[in-house]
Amino acid sequence: MHALEQKILSEGIVLSDQVLKVDAFLNHQIDPVLMQQIGKEFAARFKDAGITKIITIEASGIAPAVMAGLELGVPVIFARKYQSLTLKDDLYRSKVFSFTKQIESTIAISNKHISSSDKALVIDDFLANGQAALGLADLIHQANAEVVGIGIVIEKSFQPGRQLLLDKGYRVESLARVKSLENGTVEFVRD
Amino acid sequence: MHALEQKILSEGIVLSDQVLKVDAFLNHQIDPVLMQQIGKEFAARFKDAGITKIITIEASGIAPAVMAGLELGVPVIFARKYQSLTLKDDLYRSKVFSFTKQIESTIAISNKHISSSDKALVIDDFLANGQAALGLADLIHQANAEVVGIGIVIEKSFQPGRQLLLDKGYRVESLARVKSLENGTVEFVRD
Repeated sequence: MHALEQKILSEGIVLSDQVLKVDAFLNHQIDPVLMQQIGKEFAARFKDAGITKIITIEASGIAPAVMAGLELGVPVIFARKYQSLTLKDDLYRSKVFSFTKQIESTIAISNKHISSSDKALVIDDFLANGQAALGLADLIHQANAEVVGIGIVIEKSFQPGRQLLLDKGYRVESLARVKSLENGTVEFVRD
Repeated sequence: MHALEQKILSEGIVLSDQVLKVDAFLNHQIDPVLMQQIGKEFAARFKDAGITKIITIEASGIAPAVMAGLELGVPVIFARKYQSLTLKDDLYRSKVFSFTKQIESTIAISNKHISSSDKALVIDDFLANGQAALGLADLIHQANAEVVGIGIVIEKSFQPGRQLLLDKGYRVESLARVKSLENGTVEFVRD
């Protein structure tokens, strides 16, 4: 996705060979116009998939997911990383290990808002090791709903997440695929 | 805002005289079409205020804030409740006490994305005791930027937050004002 790649090149900061910081438009400050373009791109790629629900995770997944939900005309559920006071329903839960933070957290969604008839699209901001996407897919499977695909804003293609998800049979659509962050430079995958 | 009040009446759940659960469309599952309507309403109310930036807090503030940012043509910053690994810049920090959870947390935004020339609109999902809104306003003041107003999706008008913010001179625009949750029934403030 050209506009996203240009934004990464102009405002992304390469912190190391492993870490791309996009706090200027996605992870802390959010560019709503870019989010709308991202939503439209996800919608175009998945328009024939019969999606009935989008599942994402707080906090950085919410903006792209809501814009995709607006375009596709479906609700969005954001998984929480902890159990809040007013979310005391029966929950689907999954464990997610973060290699970045070296911690395991529990993510959860209420069983009230997803059912076995749902065809769900997972959306997340980053794909690195694939653990968050797998956790979200696990929540959907617990509801006996179908995972029709996984939409990623920025994929770090030099990390194992994409292949892990493909090996499990998931369709993965990443709007920007970063091949390398070496020498402080962002290089994209070209087909 | 009529569409929001109707949604609260049809899908909100009164858990107690104090707690209104709106996990069906705002705090867990999100209705993107309603969020767009909310964004347009905030934009209409603040269109002449010269807003340059919207400040909200993860996670439930993000969807309405991004839709308002899209309508107003300005970026959104969401304050984080903790310091993440890739957000190591100098931060503006404030303490927020949650009466609901009975805990104090630190909220923070990077000083990279806000400056003294900004005219900032605070947006949050709920207004109860006003502590989150005050914390967000404090972050803006630390940047020597101007707080031009506070936009709230659902105000619990029987709690002290609104008056507290008005007493400090802030303009408060709440799209739904809940007068009472007594007897399991939502009653709205009528002017």
